[in-house]
Amino acid sequence: MLELSELQRALDEAIFRELPQTHPHPDVSAFYALLRDYPARGGKRLRGTLLLLSTAAHGAPWERGLNVAAALELFQNWVLIHDDIEDDSEDRRGRPALHRTAGVPVALNVGDALHIYMWRTLLRELRGDARAAPETLPRLLEAFEWMISRTAEGQHLDLTWVAEGRFEISEAAYLEMVTLKTAYYTVVGPLELGALCAGAEPDPRLRRAGEDLGVAFQIRDDVLNLMADVAYGKEFAGDLFEAKRTLVLAHFFAHAPPAEADAARRALARPRSAKGAEMLAVLEQLKRCGSLAYAQGVAEARAARGLALLREALAALPGQEAAAHILELLSQAASRRT
Amino acid sequence: MLELSELQRALDEAIFRELPQTHPHPDVSAFYALLRDYPARGGKRLRGTLLLLSTAAHGAPWERGLNVAAALELFQNWVLIHDDIEDDSEDRRGRPALHRTAGVPVALNVGDALHIYMWRTLLRELRGDARAAPETLPRLLEAFEWMISRTAEGQHLDLTWVAEGRFEISEAAYLEMVTLKTAYYTVVGPLELGALCAGAEPDPRLRRAGEDLGVAFQIRDDVLNLMADVAYGKEFAGDLFEAKRTLVLAHFFAHAPPAEADAARRALARPRSAKGAEMLAVLEQLKRCGSLAYAQGVAEARAARGLALLREALAALPGQEAAAHILELLSQAASRRT
Repeated sequence: MLELSELQRALDEAIFRELPQTHPHPDVSAFYALLRDYPARGGKRLRGTLLLLSTAAHGAPWERGLNVAAALELFQNWVLIHDDIEDDSEDRRGRPALHRTAGVPVALNVGDALHIYMWRTLLRELRGDARAAPETLPRLLEAFEWMISRTAEGQHLDLTWVAEGRFEISEAAYLEMVTLKTAYYTVVGPLELGALCAGAEPDPRLRRAGEDLGVAFQIRDDVLNLMADVAYGKEFAGDLFEAKRTLVLAHFFAHAPPAEADAARRALARPRSAKGAEMLAVLEQLKRCGSLAYAQGVAEARAARGLALLREALAALPGQEAAAHILELLSQAASRRT
Repeated sequence: MLELSELQRALDEAIFRELPQTHPHPDVSAFYALLRDYPARGGKRLRGTLLLLSTAAHGAPWERGLNVAAALELFQNWVLIHDDIEDDSEDRRGRPALHRTAGVPVALNVGDALHIYMWRTLLRELRGDARAAPETLPRLLEAFEWMISRTAEGQHLDLTWVAEGRFEISEAAYLEMVTLKTAYYTVVGPLELGALCAGAEPDPRLRRAGEDLGVAFQIRDDVLNLMADVAYGKEFAGDLFEAKRTLVLAHFFAHAPPAEADAARRALARPRSAKGAEMLAVLEQLKRCGSLAYAQGVAEARAARGLALLREALAALPGQEAAAHILELLSQAASRRT
């Protein structure tokens, strides 16, 4: 019997295991506290949990994935610190973003240090507390690095479109960007790394299914951001204030009357500090144009296709209890309300 | 016969080996070009060269240190990208800092990606193109991670003093900060990692000597920054515009007449954009107070003590030709004019 709560307690413990606690120098101790800030704010631990479940689905005890799952969670945390600087976000998990309280220089450096501790956690595999299957270890480390390199590339696309003020992003370009930025580290990576931790060869269908489900997850995230009635730990309509390129906007600019599209483009292009209630007017236009509903439809279609393929791929694996948890978790994630 | 130019050509090649070149997506290709920007601006490659020489001094072919030396150079490059954001520096190696041309979000993400490629380069040791001695590999990776974690701690001290407007930094606090921020990755790390690449146990004297020499190197850097007649790739007196805490300032605030110290503190505390020619007046005060000369004297004393201890430690090693190069390189670095 696989106890999800037990697995998540172990994951939580593994996330903090390598993070330093105290230092004789009070300023360094304060730095250590900042390292633990974002990880301690919680979050769903979706990616780490998924990785452990994939390890179990591939027939090994989930404990074999613990170092890698903890490293993946630390990855998300340092990326969030840096994302929040890049987007100048206000809030993260219901509290002010780190750079808003500590300043950009300190927050940037905290993210860098957490990146280092992510590798330290991953390299436990070489330091006598190895857990993953030794025969796949070099490939495992390379797959981890591959996953986070792709994430940085997707992030670059996203940032460079904003920096250059490019709004005419096609649906295909958007999907390519979010596959890189979100799908690899959110779904593909956890599924494949879990297999490697178990010493198994990842089924190629895991990648295709993970791309679909990761894209669905990101589109759902974009849609949730524009729904006033949900509280999911980020600011309502923050994506409009940050002028993030989303499938909602891609649809809108491809279908709105030209005059309306021009006006929205000008409003979105203003610096964040100059934006106010007119963003709600833009949101109304997006809704009127059917762009929110369209994006939601694409998310649902991708999720359905991904889940069907994943169900097929998982059916052949030895750990069917874990496989069922994976399907449930991912079907929730792709249609989540918070 | 050890050819320094051959060693540095190989190092250069190793630095770029893992950096990706082209991608079908033009925006990702542009990202790859940004990854190569800072490394391609040159620099002295002091740290990588030192590491290779240490490998040779410990009796192994210098080639055994190539992956680790290249990773160390990549470390410096991503740190410089992030430092330039943190300090809002104008120039780097004679050209505009990356965030001044690409913007903070893109530059931050480029630094993160270079950090990932640093690990990729280091982990060549596990991917079939290993060069370092296998028996010390886990310790080597841990020593590398230890070195860069300490650098992040020193960076935090530096940044947090600036963020909190603290100017009354004691000489002892300054020396502790620069030992962490500069000495470990500039001298201690290269010497110790070189030993481990050769499969040798690092002599404990290398650490003490490296701390002294690294501190001397940083103080010399601070002094050079305030000398108008040198061109060393950073802006003249940039440290005053950025209000960096230096030994020069520590001495000044401990010895200047209170009224003069108060005026200087107020001038330095202004935001960078509000600073102008009055920084030259502060510089004149620092000189009049003897603070530049004092700092220079401390640098020379540290360098002399470090070199003496290093000479002693190196004398016992098998590679005496490399040992002589190390001593020459470090004695130049601690008293350099550019």
